[in-house]
Amino acid sequence: MTQTTLLSPPTIPTIPTWKPTVYAKRQAQLAAIPEAWRLPHPPATPTPSKQDPDQDQDQDTLTTIRTSGILTAQELAWTETADTTVLLRALASGEISSVQLTTAFCKRAALAQQLTKCLTEIFFDRALARARWLDAEFARAGGRPRGPLHGLPVSIKDRFDLEGVDTTVGWVGLINKPARKSSSIARLLESMGAVLYVKTNVPQSLMMSDSYNHVFGQSINAFNSRLISGGSSGGEGALIGTRGSVLGIGTDIGGSIRIPANLQGLYSVCPSRGRVPWDCSFMHQHYMVPPVAGPMARSLASIEHFMAALLASEPWTLDPGCIPIPWRAELAALPPAHRKLRVAIIHDDGVVKPQPPIARAMREVERKLVDAGHEVIPWPATALHKEGTALWTKAILADGGQHCRYLCDIVGEPLIEGMVVGTAEDELSVEEREKLEETKYTYQETYLSQWTTSGIDALLMPVTPWVGYRPKSWVVSAQWLGYTALWNLLDYAAVTVPVTCADARVDCPESNRDSEINRAWREHVPRNESDRFNYLQYDIDLVKDMPVTVQVVGGKFGEEKAVAVAKVLDELLR
Amino acid sequence: MTQTTLLSPPTIPTIPTWKPTVYAKRQAQLAAIPEAWRLPHPPATPTPSKQDPDQDQDQDTLTTIRTSGILTAQELAWTETADTTVLLRALASGEISSVQLTTAFCKRAALAQQLTKCLTEIFFDRALARARWLDAEFARAGGRPRGPLHGLPVSIKDRFDLEGVDTTVGWVGLINKPARKSSSIARLLESMGAVLYVKTNVPQSLMMSDSYNHVFGQSINAFNSRLISGGSSGGEGALIGTRGSVLGIGTDIGGSIRIPANLQGLYSVCPSRGRVPWDCSFMHQHYMVPPVAGPMARSLASIEHFMAALLASEPWTLDPGCIPIPWRAELAALPPAHRKLRVAIIHDDGVVKPQPPIARAMREVERKLVDAGHEVIPWPATALHKEGTALWTKAILADGGQHCRYLCDIVGEPLIEGMVVGTAEDELSVEEREKLEETKYTYQETYLSQWTTSGIDALLMPVTPWVGYRPKSWVVSAQWLGYTALWNLLDYAAVTVPVTCADARVDCPESNRDSEINRAWREHVPRNESDRFNYLQYDIDLVKDMPVTVQVVGGKFGEEKAVAVAKVLDELLR
Repeated sequence: MTQTTLLSPPTIPTIPTWKPTVYAKRQAQLAAIPEAWRLPHPPATPTPSKQDPDQDQDQDTLTTIRTSGILTAQELAWTETADTTVLLRALASGEISSVQLTTAFCKRAALAQQLTKCLTEIFFDRALARARWLDAEFARAGGRPRGPLHGLPVSIKDRFDLEGVDTTVGWVGLINKPARKSSSIARLLESMGAVLYVKTNVPQSLMMSDSYNHVFGQSINAFNSRLISGGSSGGEGALIGTRGSVLGIGTDIGGSIRIPANLQGLYSVCPSRGRVPWDCSFMHQHYMVPPVAGPMARSLASIEHFMAALLASEPWTLDPGCIPIPWRAELAALPPAHRKLRVAIIHDDGVVKPQPPIARAMREVERKLVDAGHEVIPWPATALHKEGTALWTKAILADGGQHCRYLCDIVGEPLIEGMVVGTAEDELSVEEREKLEETKYTYQETYLSQWTTSGIDALLMPVTPWVGYRPKSWVVSAQWLGYTALWNLLDYAAVTVPVTCADARVDCPESNRDSEINRAWREHVPRNESDRFNYLQYDIDLVKDMPVTVQVVGGKFGEEKAVAVAKVLDELLR
Repeated sequence: MTQTTLLSPPTIPTIPTWKPTVYAKRQAQLAAIPEAWRLPHPPATPTPSKQDPDQDQDQDTLTTIRTSGILTAQELAWTETADTTVLLRALASGEISSVQLTTAFCKRAALAQQLTKCLTEIFFDRALARARWLDAEFARAGGRPRGPLHGLPVSIKDRFDLEGVDTTVGWVGLINKPARKSSSIARLLESMGAVLYVKTNVPQSLMMSDSYNHVFGQSINAFNSRLISGGSSGGEGALIGTRGSVLGIGTDIGGSIRIPANLQGLYSVCPSRGRVPWDCSFMHQHYMVPPVAGPMARSLASIEHFMAALLASEPWTLDPGCIPIPWRAELAALPPAHRKLRVAIIHDDGVVKPQPPIARAMREVERKLVDAGHEVIPWPATALHKEGTALWTKAILADGGQHCRYLCDIVGEPLIEGMVVGTAEDELSVEEREKLEETKYTYQETYLSQWTTSGIDALLMPVTPWVGYRPKSWVVSAQWLGYTALWNLLDYAAVTVPVTCADARVDCPESNRDSEINRAWREHVPRNESDRFNYLQYDIDLVKDMPVTVQVVGGKFGEEKAVAVAKVLDELLR
């Protein structure tokens, strides 16, 4: 099928008029991947008549990439390095050039895209041109790096603008409308020496944990093609999971960084508003629940280096929404052995019971902490967490879905079922919004009082009560976002830490009947629709070997505290 | 007239039904002042038939107070101490008791009230009971103060809630509705050891620089009864000006701390949102322009001590709106002599030309700085400042005056002419508000870029282009708030510093014809309605000897920087 054919008017009237735009966009996306970087047997090219099928065949992306022959052994080794600081040292010493490293990550991202549909915009040429420029500048300056991220390829979620590149965020109506100005985080990353090379996939409307949209299709999990990559930073999660990126920036308004991080076993920070630049945090109706930007990576060191470097670059001199709190390394440091932590724990929020691997992960973390002499206290969740999640939902739906309807109407694109988007009934008037703000403030005050008087270092809890879902399943369920969304309402910082993987032997309620967790699961009587869905979906054969992360909530502006506790967990668990 | 008579139904139908409520409130207010603390010839008791007259007779409040015989010599000395740290040291050493100091300030506040109508709620009994308790605790703890403000009387604007006390903010409809919970700042002050004893007068609706309302009448200037005390923290300004308080907390959304500080020659901080606790900063429609709380006092040391002590008490553990930036003493320190400042200056914002004493003050400040080797650069103001002020106005009026209409309607109270309150035409829909937020963010970004690239330590400019106005004159004029309101829109911190006083000899355009400033004034052709009003109102005989302050703008979260520059000014000018 040639591009000419694609661009000619559709002859079959049943094909929506916006489909040709999508084909052209996908063709352009594919064309951005050099022939030499294409897999011999890529997944079926998206076709108009067939929505991305739920492939029921497991596919080991890492093995496919490693054996593809497209990356050299050296390129494989670089891209498999989990710690950005190792790569940055190699770049800063001149041991590797930015062009070399960028080439490696472009190749791997290209493969990741073919295997997981994790990308939206691909601009390898631009990235390589910048890498060449950085290398030249580096040589000219006698080997002085241009900033703390000198030469490092960094991926960003499609939500961020990059001058000259589309920001479709999965809306057909936004195709071919390149951004006129880069988002503050993109400008900051470049000023810190980073090389931007791809933007990553999202769900239509961003309000979903399954990154599927009409423009770029279904992003699947980095490790299991039968499972979702999460969302809304799902493409970012899948890209980093496949080692197609070593550091990526997502956004989170209800779990959008943490859920993909959880599903791909990544470290991530969902910060309080104002720490990581994000022009949108202070705009629109976002005063009610602030969306935030944050890093995702495969090591805690990468996360901390990014946060420290970012804040050392004083983003508040560029972005009026940023708050001048430097990275407080002393708060983020691994506490000395004699200093025992006091951490709260939520095993189950009382609404949706976590699946066995999650429950086991929480028990293991608790036991390790207690064994190491730390204090772990139970945290009351139910009533207060239900109330907070209800406030979050009310705020999120407050525009009654108008914005999404507007975006749909540009080209007559339908809204994908299950997006967390309001209807006319949810729309709040100015007065109702004010009332909601008042209620929210009172709620925040109550929660803060509980937090402060408890004297905890952090709160541990699951990120999601599930290990993995099939594409397009969760979207049509009675989704429960309480585990993550509450922290957005409170604007508390949270960090994800991978702690274990689902184990086919251990986490099978039927075969491992000795486990107390499995017994409780077998005997569980679903509490509500959301709980029933989660209960029925659990299938250890489907999710075996998938990573499980724990969420470390550090409180408002508690990024450093959460990182310190994450370090303790890392020490205890590895 | 007995209270029984006052409470009986009005017999003359032309008296609005809400008036008896006001008489009762004023009687109760008067009753809160012990007989022994009443002046022999107080200003006429408010009567229903006569709205607070514009007394055209100058009255020297300080002399009246000093010669009243109501305060002992010791009490006069204590209350005339400008520096809170001196009083706090005396309290902490046990040299004076909190009961002694509180008694002194209660007496002086009682006199200030009789002379300037600066108070709303008066609760001396409660204050003295608390002082007694603090003294007892102090004794019990072997002389250890209970917090950094141990035993110090602190006044607060009526805008703040205090449990069990009315928060009328000048609305008749809010009389006899005592607050059920104290505002976070009031709780913080008490936890720091302060003694609250009075709340201070405001304009109806708070949106005005002339503190006049139907409940408590017209607050006049501390130094000149023919002039206003400013607003909306006007009562606070008058109270501190008369030394009826040594430290007060006001609020500012367009100049409400800085303007009364200017008119009474006080130091003050209008901080960025989140530094000083104020529950309302994050509520209602305040995401568009945040109201902030801040200190007002007669010395810079008092201001800095308060800010440092407040932030050391970690208000963010109590108030979810607070941001954990401690007081950065190193930024607030007087720069070493060899470190020269780079400050920008605005003499005239191009909209309303400052009156001669203000213009002279700015010239003097500039000359002193230049003479001391500092760099002073002109700052472009006109177009950008007009635009910012227009955005501020749009945001402030966005509710179309609904809230005020609601408050009026409780008892059928009329809205006082001239309040900066919207009409139906100004009301913004949800979509229009979102658009405004976007425009504001872009504006903030533009301004921040200009600020950052200029490399300035601070920006100096007038607080107001006027020295003083008669009561109820400015309210009916085409008020221009651009000198102060812009910084609220930008959420930049600003500090006021008294620099000079209007001088009958020097600042008279007719008699002192040599002055270049006076010549320019004589030749000035008014640019617009606001400028014409300000030009015609200038009368050196009316405003002679009145203080003039300069506004030191420190940028976002630039409280410390502004204080450092204020210290330089203090050194150069005193």
